[in-house]
Amino acid sequence: MKINDTHYRSVWLADDGHTVEIFDQTKLPFEIQIIQLRTMKDAATAIKEMWVRGAPLIGAVAAYGMALAMRQESNDKNLQQAYDALVTTRPTAINLKWSLDRSYRALEHIKPSLREEIAYRIANEIADEDVELCRKIGEHGLKIIQKIAATKSVDETINILTHCNAGWLATVDWGTALAPVYMAHDAGIKVHVWVDETRPRNQGGLTAFELGSHGVPHTLIADNAGGHLMQHGKVDLCIVGTDRTTARGDVCNKVGTYLKALAAKANQVPFYVALPSPTLDFSVWDGVKEIPIEQRSGEEQSHVYGLTPEGGRSWVNTAPSGTTCGNYAFDVTPAELVTGLITERGFCNATEEGLRMLFPDLCGKPSS
Amino acid sequence: MKINDTHYRSVWLADDGHTVEIFDQTKLPFEIQIIQLRTMKDAATAIKEMWVRGAPLIGAVAAYGMALAMRQESNDKNLQQAYDALVTTRPTAINLKWSLDRSYRALEHIKPSLREEIAYRIANEIADEDVELCRKIGEHGLKIIQKIAATKSVDETINILTHCNAGWLATVDWGTALAPVYMAHDAGIKVHVWVDETRPRNQGGLTAFELGSHGVPHTLIADNAGGHLMQHGKVDLCIVGTDRTTARGDVCNKVGTYLKALAAKANQVPFYVALPSPTLDFSVWDGVKEIPIEQRSGEEQSHVYGLTPEGGRSWVNTAPSGTTCGNYAFDVTPAELVTGLITERGFCNATEEGLRMLFPDLCGKPSS
Repeated sequence: MKINDTHYRSVWLADDGHTVEIFDQTKLPFEIQIIQLRTMKDAATAIKEMWVRGAPLIGAVAAYGMALAMRQESNDKNLQQAYDALVTTRPTAINLKWSLDRSYRALEHIKPSLREEIAYRIANEIADEDVELCRKIGEHGLKIIQKIAATKSVDETINILTHCNAGWLATVDWGTALAPVYMAHDAGIKVHVWVDETRPRNQGGLTAFELGSHGVPHTLIADNAGGHLMQHGKVDLCIVGTDRTTARGDVCNKVGTYLKALAAKANQVPFYVALPSPTLDFSVWDGVKEIPIEQRSGEEQSHVYGLTPEGGRSWVNTAPSGTTCGNYAFDVTPAELVTGLITERGFCNATEEGLRMLFPDLCGKPSS
Repeated sequence: MKINDTHYRSVWLADDGHTVEIFDQTKLPFEIQIIQLRTMKDAATAIKEMWVRGAPLIGAVAAYGMALAMRQESNDKNLQQAYDALVTTRPTAINLKWSLDRSYRALEHIKPSLREEIAYRIANEIADEDVELCRKIGEHGLKIIQKIAATKSVDETINILTHCNAGWLATVDWGTALAPVYMAHDAGIKVHVWVDETRPRNQGGLTAFELGSHGVPHTLIADNAGGHLMQHGKVDLCIVGTDRTTARGDVCNKVGTYLKALAAKANQVPFYVALPSPTLDFSVWDGVKEIPIEQRSGEEQSHVYGLTPEGGRSWVNTAPSGTTCGNYAFDVTPAELVTGLITERGFCNATEEGLRMLFPDLCGKPSS
């Protein structure tokens, strides 16, 4: 997507063909700083220090890390060491291991002199495949927005509410929930996005940055505001991402998603989830009962980061001294609140049947 | 309620019997600073600069402002000037005008030499009446908590979720939504409060300060978290305040209240509204359609105040540069989501019938 009219991905190769470039996302949305990764260690640091975030992007950067390692020294020992170093950079990201395994398996049985080239090719493939997956989600989601547009006059704006950041910064390009929004905007449809702040980590700032940089009209709002907006017809649809989707279509996403889904249902606002198939988990049925919800440090709740009036950046503690803070990172939106799932293969209902029809190859044997 | 084991009201007379003392609430929850009001102008400034906030407290401070004016100069001209100066300090607080009218009417026809004494007496009465009103809400609300306690073992904690600050800092003592909580805690019932942060203005910090100062266990959480907590049985009941309650029981309160009410309904969690009768507005029927919702400055959304790591205090801008922020201050919770109203006269259903039964003297003639 665009920043100041220049198209970017969230990871790319520099003009020299081998240096890997990324944005330092810890500085976003306050500063745009491009970082060059020249060694495997640089790539490992980028993942560990969260200069890159979002499972698909982490996977791609890890694969480029393998390529950088093979450029440095392509023997068996370094292949193994690079894998070991990269796979431990983040504890839970599924795409990280998947991506490293793919690279490792492709490299282990070929001669060292060819490994650099193959490793880059695989990293490029992984990045391109993610872009393609998001692009397809975008195309399918665009149809929903077009349908709504068809019911309105040309001048009327379509208001879309999103929660957290499921945009191109979390993937390689397009994003998941935001892909349909970018496509609609690029197609000349008048869209406006209500961007949930997404406390406690304020990922709404990233979404606002993305949308602003690409020129998509948007308004940043408190997470509390969505219900009021839906009551008053100011939201035409909601699109959110997902971290994990169960066999029956329950959706585990950033905490607060569930509250928006309840409000959408109560106010007949369509509530869609953009669902890249890697987030499907057919081993889980009842998301509320079965998915353990990560509890993170209370400091993420009490401490907020931003620009000071003097132009510096600072954390501030917003809680009274000694206050215990809770920090539940995700919640589960039961399938019955979800209007539909937008996948790279098209739509389906948020039901076991819907998912089985679209993903017969992934769902295994029936659960009942 | 208590701060460091000393009982305070939010406004009181100093030992000299005429200086009025308050907390500078703009410094809370980060610093406890008591301010002495010695003149009518001091009182006007305290209201205008929001050193005091909350309709009942504003009303009481205004009445003390009249007393300070009469102490300074008790002639007719100053009586009128004091009224005029105080009534324009805040645009919409109902209690402000009600309180000033009461003081003015009591003073206008008596001789100036008696006015100071009468004005203080009336201010004390207004403050005491508010305490009594909140105390009664607390006593009635306590019964709900006792009922829930009776279904649990002695060691089990009762978890109460609240939104915004409807505590003693917004009234003269006890608060509205928090009065039952204080009473339950003081009665030895094990309560724990989930304190919604209440973006964008973070009034949850005031609630956390209040509860912490009085020794009531509590946890500050993102506004996003309540749905997850209710899904998992971690909330026994919700109690919130209200700014305005319609003839059929719709409740207009701080934005985000509606989302919590939806989650409570979906998860069979009782959702109570503490309702001092001055917030009743029998002239309004459908709160969603009829109550205009104040939109405030976007800066309240983007800018957050807190303690810096260096120990100072600062605002930080959390939004990307140039971001448009929306700021809807209130929302309306439809009556059907409200389990019951806790008033100074006891409980009633959030229905026209319920309110008419309890407040036949206030409701005027039937609307249908």
